[in-house]
Amino acid sequence: MESGVVVGVDIGGTKVLAGVVDAQGRVSSTALRTTPGRRVVTAQVEDALVEAILGSAGGRPLAGVGVAAAGFVDSRGERVMFAPHLPWQGEPLRRLLEERLDCPVALDNDANCAARAEAHHGAARGATSALMITMGTGIGGAVLLDGNVLRGANGMAGEFGHMQVVPDGQACECGKKGCWEQYSSGNALVRNARALMAEQPSVLDEMSGGSPERVTGPMVTSAAEEGDLVARAAFATVGEWLGVGVANLVAALDPEVVVIGGGVSAAGDKLLDRARSALQRNLVGAAHRAVPSLVAAQLGPQAGMIGAALLVR
Amino acid sequence: MESGVVVGVDIGGTKVLAGVVDAQGRVSSTALRTTPGRRVVTAQVEDALVEAILGSAGGRPLAGVGVAAAGFVDSRGERVMFAPHLPWQGEPLRRLLEERLDCPVALDNDANCAARAEAHHGAARGATSALMITMGTGIGGAVLLDGNVLRGANGMAGEFGHMQVVPDGQACECGKKGCWEQYSSGNALVRNARALMAEQPSVLDEMSGGSPERVTGPMVTSAAEEGDLVARAAFATVGEWLGVGVANLVAALDPEVVVIGGGVSAAGDKLLDRARSALQRNLVGAAHRAVPSLVAAQLGPQAGMIGAALLVR
Repeated sequence: MESGVVVGVDIGGTKVLAGVVDAQGRVSSTALRTTPGRRVVTAQVEDALVEAILGSAGGRPLAGVGVAAAGFVDSRGERVMFAPHLPWQGEPLRRLLEERLDCPVALDNDANCAARAEAHHGAARGATSALMITMGTGIGGAVLLDGNVLRGANGMAGEFGHMQVVPDGQACECGKKGCWEQYSSGNALVRNARALMAEQPSVLDEMSGGSPERVTGPMVTSAAEEGDLVARAAFATVGEWLGVGVANLVAALDPEVVVIGGGVSAAGDKLLDRARSALQRNLVGAAHRAVPSLVAAQLGPQAGMIGAALLVR
Repeated sequence: MESGVVVGVDIGGTKVLAGVVDAQGRVSSTALRTTPGRRVVTAQVEDALVEAILGSAGGRPLAGVGVAAAGFVDSRGERVMFAPHLPWQGEPLRRLLEERLDCPVALDNDANCAARAEAHHGAARGATSALMITMGTGIGGAVLLDGNVLRGANGMAGEFGHMQVVPDGQACECGKKGCWEQYSSGNALVRNARALMAEQPSVLDEMSGGSPERVTGPMVTSAAEEGDLVARAAFATVGEWLGVGVANLVAALDPEVVVIGGGVSAAGDKLLDRARSALQRNLVGAAHRAVPSLVAAQLGPQAGMIGAALLVR
């Protein structure tokens, strides 16, 4: 790292965000590209990645590049095995980018990167052990021990969203039933709100032009901020299930702190207060132990990029 | 460890088992004492411990003593904070024994010790990551990373039995409802068998003298070995729930191997085959990953003692 800049890049289903990240986790110049999507050849995705990386560096030499990818990354950090929204299937992305960029490149899953960033520069800083729960469309997560992400034997640790919480419950995209993310996620929030709209009036009626199927997560967040009862009830259920699932993970892992990130966490204490109370009620031996604090992530949408940069430091 | 013997001692609700353990985890002389029980002064329990330790050493000098205790041990390994079947409440057991025995003493929870023993000398030997599930009256457990037990912020990691698997389910001794150990444990096995005895004839009728309330876990194991349909069905349900709960833990932690120990595991493949099939069916992405092997513990009732001895090596 003696000369040149370190770039972190986060590639998701819709966009590539790259930025120059310093040793304190501060982001200076960034560059954004849209992701070409799933039905393209992989070279086009790599082109978008390279453009975003070089764009953020702005002509400065690259000391190293870290990549956070929304997909399953093999346990050695070489390949994207499968990505729901991208065309990769076992592509040796790390080596391909290293050849094109002529600098060291490191690769990890985006949820792991975000967790690593929160551990080093955000809400889990200083904690010996932490859990990161990322609430987006579904639930992603990571186990942090001494600032390191637990990868697991297949590089698949942290799939908290697919722990079963209801026997024979809601069908999940993964093919199973009753997965936690069916009860506590952006999708669950929207489903709860739609169901409640059938029963009582809500500002969501107007926001969605009278079409419950047009309701989105951000609409529910904004309606809840206005005090809408339907939106608040939708958050209460998601928050309750968040606390139940966190209590299960805390029983198993006893972390110092639990960090909640992802789009749904933008609701802040509307979500977290309910989750804290459910955690307290559902955690075994809560009266005889320190119940971990449940806090909002601090780095927002830049967490993946910042954590990717940490891979090459 | 240059001279003298290392003794491991396991103290449970009914007995104290001490033994001389060598560097390969082999046990030579052992000594057994009954535990005075909960309604005695703590000094009597310590007397029983010291007697068992000195009895197993048989006059040889002590190089060190490791203690496995059935209770919550603080995260520094100094005190037994609470033990359901013993009188300790925050007793500084490690220091007290060190003063009486005049040798280094180390202390940990019994489930952690058993897991450590399986990691070093038993079924999890050589695994980078493993889970240990101990099925006795309830479910105990441990997370093993690089042969070390994850202790957690309160020293309470591994309380797998109190992860909720059924919302508003069976009441649990812990005060909550729907805990995993209510569906997959020695207690669950016996409850299942009793319920089925009301519906169809079983060799358990004779074994229990016609009184379902006299049925015990070992009776159900032995009836299942004889091919009794009630006993087999009781095991099938426990095995199914074992697989469901293991699938949840594997989604979160992605270990290389899962070791099943404790009294119920004596049933071997009668239990484990069903659990393996349920794990395969309930694990997210099972088709795209190495599903961890689910194996029986190898060290039996001596695991706690052997793992306790490892504490001082």
